[in-house]
Amino acid sequence: MDWTAEISAAQERIAGHVQRTPVMTTTGFGLDHPVEMKLEQLQHTGSFKARGAFNTLLSSDVPPAGIVAASGGNHGAAAAYAARTLGHQAQIFVPEMAGPAKIALIERTGAKLSVVPGEYANAAQQAQEHAARTGAMQIHAYDAPATVAGQGTCFAEWEAQGLEADTVLVAVGGGGLIAGALAWFAGRRKVVAVEPETSRALNAALEAGEPVDVTVSGVAANALGARRIGSICFGLARGMQSVVVPDAAITQAQQALWRERRLLVEPAGATALAALMSGAYRPAPGERVAVLVCGGNIAPDPFP
Amino acid sequence: MDWTAEISAAQERIAGHVQRTPVMTTTGFGLDHPVEMKLEQLQHTGSFKARGAFNTLLSSDVPPAGIVAASGGNHGAAAAYAARTLGHQAQIFVPEMAGPAKIALIERTGAKLSVVPGEYANAAQQAQEHAARTGAMQIHAYDAPATVAGQGTCFAEWEAQGLEADTVLVAVGGGGLIAGALAWFAGRRKVVAVEPETSRALNAALEAGEPVDVTVSGVAANALGARRIGSICFGLARGMQSVVVPDAAITQAQQALWRERRLLVEPAGATALAALMSGAYRPAPGERVAVLVCGGNIAPDPFP
Repeated sequence: MDWTAEISAAQERIAGHVQRTPVMTTTGFGLDHPVEMKLEQLQHTGSFKARGAFNTLLSSDVPPAGIVAASGGNHGAAAAYAARTLGHQAQIFVPEMAGPAKIALIERTGAKLSVVPGEYANAAQQAQEHAARTGAMQIHAYDAPATVAGQGTCFAEWEAQGLEADTVLVAVGGGGLIAGALAWFAGRRKVVAVEPETSRALNAALEAGEPVDVTVSGVAANALGARRIGSICFGLARGMQSVVVPDAAITQAQQALWRERRLLVEPAGATALAALMSGAYRPAPGERVAVLVCGGNIAPDPFP
Repeated sequence: MDWTAEISAAQERIAGHVQRTPVMTTTGFGLDHPVEMKLEQLQHTGSFKARGAFNTLLSSDVPPAGIVAASGGNHGAAAAYAARTLGHQAQIFVPEMAGPAKIALIERTGAKLSVVPGEYANAAQQAQEHAARTGAMQIHAYDAPATVAGQGTCFAEWEAQGLEADTVLVAVGGGGLIAGALAWFAGRRKVVAVEPETSRALNAALEAGEPVDVTVSGVAANALGARRIGSICFGLARGMQSVVVPDAAITQAQQALWRERRLLVEPAGATALAALMSGAYRPAPGERVAVLVCGGNIAPDPFP
């Protein structure tokens, strides 16, 4: 796949529909070096997911039955928002662990919503059945080329905004976002995968040499809790550096982002920074680092 | 006063100590036009006040008794933070209405803190007496040239970041920030003053033809509740457009900033946007508008 062309095409396709999210270079967080950040949690519906959703819808013939998506919350909100914006029906399946804040966020888009007992994989199963039954188009949360190309626009945009870092840290759930990073940078910059110890689908896959099932739990589970890494991501990720962080480090980074920088994010949105703050990733002297802040749909919602 | 030179000098002076806050162009908020925003609530201690505080300290010989400041909360936090960073003692007087979130923010800097009954003017009185008694240097919250020049760096920085707007909307309390805007833009761009109906010191002064006392109350009072507009601001503000917004419009803008853009701000930080959302300021067709988001020290604090 010519990812550069795919991502560039995606960027043009979704330009009118997504926010160009701001970037900043910030000090603090107990670090002795600055960190470049892209504030992608300021995207529509509070995460990068709107990029993949719009790219998928705008590059497909959406059937009259509309779209269906399974989601821990963020992808469902983005898919529902994109569908509404473009005039399509949407049916979203979320696992219970999405939680009331993300469930309310999806409800506000006007989409049909089903809350499924258990973890993300169960919601994915029901979405698949719904698609087979109704002819609705599935928007996969991470393991589809149009999704990956959409998420890749985040990094293309960042470079156009003057990204200087040698190394970009990205939180990983199912792997759509980091696949976009790997696909866009294509080795020109180092990408480091950061996962919670409690949801380490990519870390386990790299260790095993193939995608394997993991159990998922922890503070970031509704955003990063994929049971198995996506195959597109795994194909791009061979040989990359992967680190894991404990839940406590994620919570600490989340608190620091608010206390020191007035950025209120969900645990997943603080996970990449947690790798720096906890020392799970230690930059070499002079190595310039960047952190993608990926999600802001915190629970409880301060203004529900 | 050669404000351009003063602000440029301030910018150089404080460069290593303040954050270069991000800018973005955003859609939404029920508006039919985009809005440029500068996210100055991401500044150290959650408001633009760090700029004036650092500029004052770095352009003065600070006496051994250190500094003293009166503040509704944001200026006190910034002055205390700047003092600690530069190795000076700090004594801050805040009125009760500063509230527990801002009081805790100041306490975390390690400054000495006195909570004074009543409104801001009472705290200002005590700060003055403390300065006379101890020889500590007063850092005025808004009505001093070094403060105004420091706040002006916000707008110099914004232009360097590519500000395109014809018109910049700025919330007004005592007038330090908007004085910085007027001083920097010097008529090159239109500046619109936005105040709560419940704290309209500049609006009342422009109406009366001179600074007059107003009573202050309302949701943004601890940030915008100055009893009388600063004389530097008033000198720069003659003939400018001033609008007022009801508290309900401020709260609505504050909610919209979170719901639509994941920006969690205090009421003062939403006041300029409220003028657009409520129609208190209606741009002419084709007029490009910008909003300075000035403060993020919301109560209750989500991570105290």
